[in-house]
Amino acid sequence: MAEENVVFVGKKPTMNYVLAVVTQFNSGVNTVILKARGKAISKAVDVAEIVRNRFVPSLQYGEIKIGTESLQSEKGETNVSSIEIEMKRE
Amino acid sequence: MAEENVVFVGKKPTMNYVLAVVTQFNSGVNTVILKARGKAISKAVDVAEIVRNRFVPSLQYGEIKIGTESLQSEKGETNVSSIEIEMKRE
Repeated sequence: MAEENVVFVGKKPTMNYVLAVVTQFNSGVNTVILKARGKAISKAVDVAEIVRNRFVPSLQYGEIKIGTESLQSEKGETNVSSIEIEMKRE
Repeated sequence: MAEENVVFVGKKPTMNYVLAVVTQFNSGVNTVILKARGKAISKAVDVAEIVRNRFVPSLQYGEIKIGTESLQSEKGETNVSSIEIEMKRE
């Protein structure tokens, strides 16, 4: 089974992540997982949809998981939402 | 089957939507669907996780769907990402 690849979505421009995902698919893997937390969750959904609509039409979504992660910061422990979007090329 | 209820997440404070969802579950329905677009997608995930972690521990996620909707604005047609989070009480 092709090694599953993870792309973490953060503060960079959306198209950086679109390029990262497309590059992974072009390198031959069949599954890429997008991960994001907090406000970057919306951007992760944008990335997935741009890849599916413009670059990899055969792309299907596998499991989409949402959850909560706790982060240690100077102000103590804070909770942040997280998402994982499994993208599979048929 | 209890009528499926939809809560649209927009620009209001997060807790407004948490209250709306908890109120739906308290009124006896077993399935509530959160819908959001664009930047509100992150807030929708926050709402789902707050409800699950603090108010309805037996809550399970059903289908989580992401997609693209096209909007008509003064600047013409624009695309925006969307999410649907199905929340089911066991």
